[in-house]
Amino acid sequence: SVSAMAKQAPSFDEADLKVAAELRDQALNSSLDYEIVESLTTEVGPRMAGTPGDAAAVKWGVAKLKELGFDKVWTEPVTFTTWKRGVEMAEVIAPYPQPLVITALGFSVATPEDGLSAEIIQFDDLDALKNAPEGIAEGKIVFIKNRMERARDGSGYGPAVAARGQGASQAAAKGAVGILIRSIGTDSDRMAHTGMMRYDEGIKKIPAAALSAPDADLLENMIRRGKPVTVKMTIGAKQGGEYTSHNVIGEVTGSEKPEEYVIIGAHLDSWDLGTGALDDGAGIGITTAAAKLILGLPERPKRSIRVIMFANEEQGLVGGKAYAEAHKDHIKNIITAAESDFGAGKIWRIDSKVKPEAIPAVKQMAEVMEPLGISYGNNQAGGGPDLIPLRGKGISVFSLRQDGTDYFDYHHTPNDTLDKIDPEALRQNTAAYVIFAYLSAQMNGDFGTGFHQK
Amino acid sequence: SVSAMAKQAPSFDEADLKVAAELRDQALNSSLDYEIVESLTTEVGPRMAGTPGDAAAVKWGVAKLKELGFDKVWTEPVTFTTWKRGVEMAEVIAPYPQPLVITALGFSVATPEDGLSAEIIQFDDLDALKNAPEGIAEGKIVFIKNRMERARDGSGYGPAVAARGQGASQAAAKGAVGILIRSIGTDSDRMAHTGMMRYDEGIKKIPAAALSAPDADLLENMIRRGKPVTVKMTIGAKQGGEYTSHNVIGEVTGSEKPEEYVIIGAHLDSWDLGTGALDDGAGIGITTAAAKLILGLPERPKRSIRVIMFANEEQGLVGGKAYAEAHKDHIKNIITAAESDFGAGKIWRIDSKVKPEAIPAVKQMAEVMEPLGISYGNNQAGGGPDLIPLRGKGISVFSLRQDGTDYFDYHHTPNDTLDKIDPEALRQNTAAYVIFAYLSAQMNGDFGTGFHQK
Ligand SMILES: [Zn+2]
Ligand SMILES: [Zn+2]
Ligand SMILES: [Zn+2]
Ligand SMILES: [Zn+2]
Repeated sequence: SVSAMAKQAPSFDEADLKVAAELRDQALNSSLDYEIVESLTTEVGPRMAGTPGDAAAVKWGVAKLKELGFDKVWTEPVTFTTWKRGVEMAEVIAPYPQPLVITALGFSVATPEDGLSAEIIQFDDLDALKNAPEGIAEGKIVFIKNRMERARDGSGYGPAVAARGQGASQAAAKGAVGILIRSIGTDSDRMAHTGMMRYDEGIKKIPAAALSAPDADLLENMIRRGKPVTVKMTIGAKQGGEYTSHNVIGEVTGSEKPEEYVIIGAHLDSWDLGTGALDDGAGIGITTAAAKLILGLPERPKRSIRVIMFANEEQGLVGGKAYAEAHKDHIKNIITAAESDFGAGKIWRIDSKVKPEAIPAVKQMAEVMEPLGISYGNNQAGGGPDLIPLRGKGISVFSLRQDGTDYFDYHHTPNDTLDKIDPEALRQNTAAYVIFAYLSAQMNGDFGTGFHQK
Repeated sequence: SVSAMAKQAPSFDEADLKVAAELRDQALNSSLDYEIVESLTTEVGPRMAGTPGDAAAVKWGVAKLKELGFDKVWTEPVTFTTWKRGVEMAEVIAPYPQPLVITALGFSVATPEDGLSAEIIQFDDLDALKNAPEGIAEGKIVFIKNRMERARDGSGYGPAVAARGQGASQAAAKGAVGILIRSIGTDSDRMAHTGMMRYDEGIKKIPAAALSAPDADLLENMIRRGKPVTVKMTIGAKQGGEYTSHNVIGEVTGSEKPEEYVIIGAHLDSWDLGTGALDDGAGIGITTAAAKLILGLPERPKRSIRVIMFANEEQGLVGGKAYAEAHKDHIKNIITAAESDFGAGKIWRIDSKVKPEAIPAVKQMAEVMEPLGISYGNNQAGGGPDLIPLRGKGISVFSLRQDGTDYFDYHHTPNDTLDKIDPEALRQNTAAYVIFAYLSAQMNGDFGTGFHQK
């Protein structure tokens, strides 16, 4: 019946919408989010999975959540194989000797200790390499020169990053002894962008590195002159042993249905080159500060809110997978979830992945965000990388989409540092997250579950 | 008498002003300037004084000037003591261990091979260090945190750079064992800016390096927490032997008074970190392309024009000093001179240092530049760093002042690469230089000589 459907349709009490608006305005007047990122980047800095920085970050996360007065703070183990960056150098040997700036891609194997010298063979992009004749790169170093395009939504990343992930095995399949890609980034700084790559089974593992944009330009300019270009690359990276890090979790425990909870989170690990301010210190600051504002209310929300600082997102969403596995028997307790992992630009849109009957409620939530410049988008949210494993188990998710126009200027480079964060934009993010978290914890009804993933 | 004065007042023939305007428009339609910088940065790249890149640059310069058809091409020796950059690393040891990005300052001594660890003592600027009590930095590493201000005319450089030049000896005088300065630059990229420093006689030589801006921020943030901050720095730099490089000179030989000549020039050397596109490949491209346009005229100008590619500007104006010394007996042959050494931004003003009677002629010259957005400034031109020694011998000079708003974002860093040059702005520079060089070679009368330097 119509009345039964109405009963099931999720909604928010007027009083809760009012509190959400107040929390939003408090967020806009608080610098706690920035203080948290400043603390993480200053007191911990780089925190690549499996390094001492990783351990320091876990310790920092637990201490910070306790210091902020979360009702419960705990960790859950996350185990993975580590990778260690070693020396990384490259230079043009001939015809125009000069140094090149590179960085090894995550999980690259090493070159021989005294380097690998070979002629360069250039490809426009990964497809050109895939479509090239067998053996074309025999004994050579493949250079893929494709450029990532700048976009607010980061949509240039997907097409470009395939060269990073798959380039090495595709190159090896054509006989190459090494691969250099133009960095997956939108800047023209002389810094190379790291990030994960993977070797296909049964294909020779060859060393893989990214050139900074100016160095990729340089190689192109040399190659255009028509003489063979010989490059020497030296990579000292190696796989390490098993390591157990931890997801760090802080809970605002609900007053009515404490077992039901909303997840807001970010990943605590970073790459090693920068201090991980944008990726993903910003997300840690935003979500932790949002929950802290809710802790400041006179009473706890009806449901719980969990801030999850995921371990080792960078090298394979390992923390996200571990959380989904550890909580697989209680997936229904997760009301909904959103991860902040796209830097510190302002949020401009909120997308959902909820049951159709819940969309009117999402739009009500979006209205509270409207003064922040945020409008409702669509019902095809992804929710964030560490939520992929939980999404696979059917949870509803939200994407609070940030302006990522500049994100890939700094992404996975030494330039990912605190000065790149605009405190005002960060506050706007926190304001949106506190609305999302508080209203989701207070809502009448639910966002649904059992969504299929594409 | 009035008529005698009028006779002596320099002037330009109408026909010459017309040719100058034509040359200007040709320059705006030529990409030769950019092609020259592209060639230098691609085929030579970094060319720090005394390195193989220096030798390659001299070879390149001679070949390029010959290829372009200069009437005479020759080199003149320039001898100096070299400096070699070695390993350069730093890290915070306590209380928050993490790496720091540094670069050694030119002519810094090394630390012990396994590094130098000491507590940091922070000063606001060089004056604060100078005014501090005796012995205040005993056994410590001094950190000077002053920031350079951005300005179109680069006026923030002078006040800030004193910390780089004099910081080490001032710190050593207070007992310090090392010094770190915030990079002299206007960017917030995680790249340190190198550049010369000097040790005072009779004071202990301590290792000196610059921190990137984000790393200087990081140190400040750590220090603000109040606990002692210990840094380890490792510098492997050392002084090398004597080396003889060369000024490379190309001449457009005058048709009437070939022994009289106008100098346009730039420095051929660069620091080692970038490819020296802005500093000073741009100047090489601008001045060489300007002279080449004059070579393309149906007849040679009355006087000669010399393009001088100065050796080793960076480590003490050595090429400029050598030229002044070698030509000291024929200073009067130098009609006037201008060096391009401030990047590739558009020229917005022309200043002169000429006899007062010549100022109306300079204003006529400036009128030809007006369509380029250039106006006459004043009669207090400096002329450029490599012209300082010639200025000391009384020559007239011109400063074609470039927009340097962004210059110190890249100055002396790995980021000084070709992509930072806007080809259109470069052409505007060439257009101004060709007007200056041609009209000066054609003028009736002279700009005067015997100017005293402040
Ligand atoms: Zn991330
Ligand atoms: Zn990342
Ligand atoms: Zn210079
Ligand atoms: Zn310089």
